[in-house]
Amino acid sequence: ASNKNLLILAGDGIGPEVMREVNRVVEWMDKRRAVSFDITEDLVGGAAIDKHGVPLADETMDKAMEADAVLLGAVGGPQWDNLDFSIKPERGLLRLRKEMELFANLRPALCFDALVEASSLKPELVSGLDIMIVRELTGGVYFGEPRGIETLPNGERRGINTQVYTTSEIRRVAEVAFDLARKRDSRVCSVEKANVMESGLLWREEVTKLHGEGFDDIDLSHMYADNCSMQLVRTPKQFDVILTDNLFGDMLSDTAAMLTGSLGMLPSASLGATDATGRRKAMYEPVHGSAPDIAGESKANPLATILSFAMNLRYSFDMGDEADLIEKAVTKVLSSGKRTGDIMAAGCELVSTEGMGSALLREL
Amino acid sequence: ASNKNLLILAGDGIGPEVMREVNRVVEWMDKRRAVSFDITEDLVGGAAIDKHGVPLADETMDKAMEADAVLLGAVGGPQWDNLDFSIKPERGLLRLRKEMELFANLRPALCFDALVEASSLKPELVSGLDIMIVRELTGGVYFGEPRGIETLPNGERRGINTQVYTTSEIRRVAEVAFDLARKRDSRVCSVEKANVMESGLLWREEVTKLHGEGFDDIDLSHMYADNCSMQLVRTPKQFDVILTDNLFGDMLSDTAAMLTGSLGMLPSASLGATDATGRRKAMYEPVHGSAPDIAGESKANPLATILSFAMNLRYSFDMGDEADLIEKAVTKVLSSGKRTGDIMAAGCELVSTEGMGSALLREL
Ligand SMILES: CC(C)[C@H](C(=O)O)[C@@H](O)C(=O)O
Ligand SMILES: CC(C)[C@H](C(=O)O)[C@@H](O)C(=O)O
Repeated sequence: ASNKNLLILAGDGIGPEVMREVNRVVEWMDKRRAVSFDITEDLVGGAAIDKHGVPLADETMDKAMEADAVLLGAVGGPQWDNLDFSIKPERGLLRLRKEMELFANLRPALCFDALVEASSLKPELVSGLDIMIVRELTGGVYFGEPRGIETLPNGERRGINTQVYTTSEIRRVAEVAFDLARKRDSRVCSVEKANVMESGLLWREEVTKLHGEGFDDIDLSHMYADNCSMQLVRTPKQFDVILTDNLFGDMLSDTAAMLTGSLGMLPSASLGATDATGRRKAMYEPVHGSAPDIAGESKANPLATILSFAMNLRYSFDMGDEADLIEKAVTKVLSSGKRTGDIMAAGCELVSTEGMGSALLREL
Repeated sequence: ASNKNLLILAGDGIGPEVMREVNRVVEWMDKRRAVSFDITEDLVGGAAIDKHGVPLADETMDKAMEADAVLLGAVGGPQWDNLDFSIKPERGLLRLRKEMELFANLRPALCFDALVEASSLKPELVSGLDIMIVRELTGGVYFGEPRGIETLPNGERRGINTQVYTTSEIRRVAEVAFDLARKRDSRVCSVEKANVMESGLLWREEVTKLHGEGFDDIDLSHMYADNCSMQLVRTPKQFDVILTDNLFGDMLSDTAAMLTGSLGMLPSASLGATDATGRRKAMYEPVHGSAPDIAGESKANPLATILSFAMNLRYSFDMGDEADLIEKAVTKVLSSGKRTGDIMAAGCELVSTEGMGSALLREL
């Protein structure tokens, strides 16, 4: 098989240390399973600002466009908080999403059996929880124009952002949600504020229309975003796939992640369209952030990033078996009682970032 | 004392039946405590659509502008779901908010001791919970222009809404939050997405500036909205006052309400500016919706609406003692084990809407 081109952008905070553990998994794969990766490493976020003055250098952007997949750690930290809006660490991440056109962000919210007690919800409400959030990632208020801050004649200032969606933007991400639902429990709940926002009304109409064009084996429902954020806390297991826009998805996926008690465990995939050659741009990253408070202390949980690499294998490299292998090893490590600080519980064994990586390699 | 003018808009679904119990409380006050209310009743939402073809008649709007306070039940139901966006039940509510300029929406999320077990969160995380959410209510994406759905030359459609805030819109609601915090634990957490949206950046800057102009006894912090929706589920008791915009407030206040396990218990106040005569427009309503599934069955919990009336007494009629009285009676009714279906628990006594009203009157 031809080598796969993987661009690794470890980023800031705990990014580099969790990525180190991924590297060990990649090496193991390279050696043991006759698969080979061409790995390039580069900078994003604060690390790129310190070196290049911008959160993503053009050269890095070019590499991302060429790569078969991008694996990202995390961006941001207090030392870059007071920079101008346009060059903050986050802009590097947003540029990658936008220019690679990664419109479908898949965020599984999975509650691992061994971690049920770590949830702030009652165990019976989250045990077995398995939601897939499909968040639109290149549109909406994140990128809409006009935007900015202007000063009015009377001296006041005015801040503007634009929430905008088109038919095709809605259809392509909805299709991803319907396709995924088919491999799961065949239920999609589409979330917006169609009662208040016309963009949400369009969203609802277009999703409904697409559903009628070949997806009526899927059980489609609609929910207002405020109700959804309530229902997630009340009875999260009512959901299978949640389909929503960029901003609502940002909030709802964080709520859902927190429900599982496994924030340090959750991966994500951001996918683009499949081109004529069957290739699809993709980026994989943990749901957690850069956690500057524990960076460099070998306390971070590397499993979310390792599971992001597993998603990478599954969705970009057609290596589902290898992905399964990693996911099973993660379950075993948890069952064996190994825990990083974020998921520590009475009776378990506290391990470092590296300790967790080693435990995983042993299971593999 | 001069009579107070109260406009009651019971609305749809369970609105009329919960409002009936409020009426009994008002009558009791009228008789027993030498206070008198001039009550006018009118229609809003679906009820108004059925009668007038619009969700709020101009005449009703006029009455609201004249009233000393408006008490609202709930709006909406499936029979009006397919109406045109511009005349849906919700538009009646939104028109009231906008034309009365009720820019500050106060949503207490309080966990009643007797209801700790009703929360989906672990008891120790919510017991004693007392958050006040201050949501901006007349700006942002709810009312920003341009808005609408247009058809593009290529046949696609495009839905647009505008998120917009000005200096003065931000300052006036932030001031309400700071003032409230002074009567509580003196902490305000201001929530936006300043890392992604310029309107959020302006929000953060203006709140910070106002804080420096006479509110530095308040402990002010800032949080991104996605993180806040996570933190609410993780450790809700970290918050005192949460200050946020219209759309984030819609979602965060619903999450917070659900945390308490007392959705059927939570009131809200929507306040305008104080005018030269010391008068302030105001509307009071329960946080829950119209619950069409149980409407007319005397199953609804009237306590949220009764507590909204208590807020009304406190904030609009300067009748804090009477408000205290009602709030204490609610606590006692709960301790006595009376429960409507929404908060029912083992060992408690299930009562109807009317039964709950009667129990409350007995405590009063
Ligand atoms: C870091 C930030 C720009 C980003 C977002 O808002 O999308 C993050 O919260 C996420 O969810 O990936
Ligand atoms: C009914 C709806 C228009 C309203 C809103 O979105 O503000 C409701 O959800 C609320 O929170 O009061």
